[in-house]
Amino acid sequence: MTAPEDRNAGPGPSASKGTVISVDAMGGDLGPAAVVAGLDRSAKKNPDIRFILHGPQEELSRLVAKRRHLGGRVEIREAPGVVRMADKPSQVMRQGQGTSMWSALESVRNGEATVCVSCGNTGALMALSMVRLRKLPGVSRPAIAVLWPSRNPQGFNVMLDVGADIRADAQDLLQYALMGASYARNGLDLVRPRVGLLNVGTEEHKGRAELHAAHQLIEGHAGDANYDFVGYVEGGDIPGDRADVIVTDGFTGNIAIKTGEGTAKLIGDLLREAFAYTPLSRLASVLAYTSLRRLQKRIDPRRVNGGVFLGLNGTVVKSHGAADATGVSAAVKLAFQLAQSGFSERLAQRIAGAGEAIPVASGSQQNGTHA
Amino acid sequence: MTAPEDRNAGPGPSASKGTVISVDAMGGDLGPAAVVAGLDRSAKKNPDIRFILHGPQEELSRLVAKRRHLGGRVEIREAPGVVRMADKPSQVMRQGQGTSMWSALESVRNGEATVCVSCGNTGALMALSMVRLRKLPGVSRPAIAVLWPSRNPQGFNVMLDVGADIRADAQDLLQYALMGASYARNGLDLVRPRVGLLNVGTEEHKGRAELHAAHQLIEGHAGDANYDFVGYVEGGDIPGDRADVIVTDGFTGNIAIKTGEGTAKLIGDLLREAFAYTPLSRLASVLAYTSLRRLQKRIDPRRVNGGVFLGLNGTVVKSHGAADATGVSAAVKLAFQLAQSGFSERLAQRIAGAGEAIPVASGSQQNGTHA
Repeated sequence: MTAPEDRNAGPGPSASKGTVISVDAMGGDLGPAAVVAGLDRSAKKNPDIRFILHGPQEELSRLVAKRRHLGGRVEIREAPGVVRMADKPSQVMRQGQGTSMWSALESVRNGEATVCVSCGNTGALMALSMVRLRKLPGVSRPAIAVLWPSRNPQGFNVMLDVGADIRADAQDLLQYALMGASYARNGLDLVRPRVGLLNVGTEEHKGRAELHAAHQLIEGHAGDANYDFVGYVEGGDIPGDRADVIVTDGFTGNIAIKTGEGTAKLIGDLLREAFAYTPLSRLASVLAYTSLRRLQKRIDPRRVNGGVFLGLNGTVVKSHGAADATGVSAAVKLAFQLAQSGFSERLAQRIAGAGEAIPVASGSQQNGTHA
Repeated sequence: MTAPEDRNAGPGPSASKGTVISVDAMGGDLGPAAVVAGLDRSAKKNPDIRFILHGPQEELSRLVAKRRHLGGRVEIREAPGVVRMADKPSQVMRQGQGTSMWSALESVRNGEATVCVSCGNTGALMALSMVRLRKLPGVSRPAIAVLWPSRNPQGFNVMLDVGADIRADAQDLLQYALMGASYARNGLDLVRPRVGLLNVGTEEHKGRAELHAAHQLIEGHAGDANYDFVGYVEGGDIPGDRADVIVTDGFTGNIAIKTGEGTAKLIGDLLREAFAYTPLSRLASVLAYTSLRRLQKRIDPRRVNGGVFLGLNGTVVKSHGAADATGVSAAVKLAFQLAQSGFSERLAQRIAGAGEAIPVASGSQQNGTHA
């Protein structure tokens, strides 16, 4: 790791021990104040975390100075430009230099950080990540993976792709299976994740031709790549307990998670209405406050905030555009966990191993099967 | 309407006034007792409803005799065979004669009823409906439409196709838009429904090529076919208020609704757990009982039970396989509403009109634009 100049007060993030996360301060709907507030929460909870924060120096210095847990733990990198939500990815790829998003990826590219967090424009972030970080050898289409609340003991399932690419052939779906299984091992601590392939029924004859081919490929790699293949799963299994990793193309995955999110939000709003309906129900909501908070925490999309871009040289965590401090902090927590586990390196080895169709020889000393 | 022989006590359903629904008593997970219990509920609430019930005569007679609201309102048709959930559609098409499902469709085919209700095997029911009822002139792929809880004033949106066919080209998607708009007019009483085309983003350049072609077609027919086209919508709009009718292919639609259903069920279960957690929260749930019941009623999938097969000569309401009395009764209510509104005939006119690409000349005397 290089030792970048520290423009903030106190010793720089790389001057002392700790895991460094590169953070794009701009481009989220709530602006840099929400991002800095999220970093402050994370810093409070986690003494081992440090940040390189990218955006307009002056504004960010002011915001960081107000936060008591960020002293000496944030290095600010001047990047005056901002990628807006409406900007076209192709345009950002050509003219994005000097933006906070570009700069945040640069810290991963040059090895100062292994994970980058951004709340910005998803399409632009993926396009920039592709050109600046480049795809892992052997990966044809990177994917966006999300954690989705589920009935499994770990509380979440991994689902991918949720929108990096609207197309995926059988080979792409196999790579998603490998990447999703790696993510589940490192992000959810599952030693041998169960992988399912999303379809309209669990019978083997159902669904599109590319799914039948993918079924064979994913089944064939299960032993070498250290996952269990449970075959086809349905939409109801995304929040279910039949699989830990749900593999699908980015068109279907994007629509599925947005439907699930929208339904969860509708129910949440109706629940609030129900409790406000009568004086008795308002009293009930006071009595049930702690229990309801626990439920909310379990299913709040902000808590599982952070789609992860997989298949690149380095990991990018995309937080919701509308993320508030809670959401940003959740994305940072995920980034920290992935950085700590050496996820990027392990995933690269896993994909390279599968490309050669031989069992992977893991370089990790901690756990040979944990890639 | 013909006057079938009444084998049950009292005057037959067609001997007196009322709308006749043809019901498949068998093939649901809970057996004919749940179906008969559902009919009893519907009969209690609705004095204008009558049934032709298909299945094993002896067993059904016994079940019907126990129900006080069904006296004189059910005609039983002997059909000893049962289509099982595991039966292959192709097999049922060849060997299905003599099953309750076949018999139930026969009553629509011969005009004794305009709507059929079944809890049986979806694939077999669609296959049998195709060969026995046949597609409407001008329809290439029939579709399954569902009602989904939404933020709209009517409380539900129409979504189709949710699984009749895994493929749909631009012309099919246009027909889904026409059929979905008709369904929304007749099932939800919306004079001019807003139609949206499901995609991964609302920008015009996003998504697959067939969606761009469908966008143009659906937009072009909006004036003639009396709906508003709101353009592309996303997964979050299925439970939202931007559109009343969501158009998509059967693969995407099936996965989206199953994801939404699974998520709603997970939240419901977690909510129950949350309220059982402490003595205080248990007390709270008692106080909030009425409000929570109201919420449950609003989002209970059993209440919106009933996918509707569109694009056939006659309407088929497919109830959930696991439907209990509440679920069956909800499906019957929907069937009744569609039968009363003359939906089948209106839809046929609408499709024929769009095929000729001229404004439709409605034959309805009640409301010329209500097809």
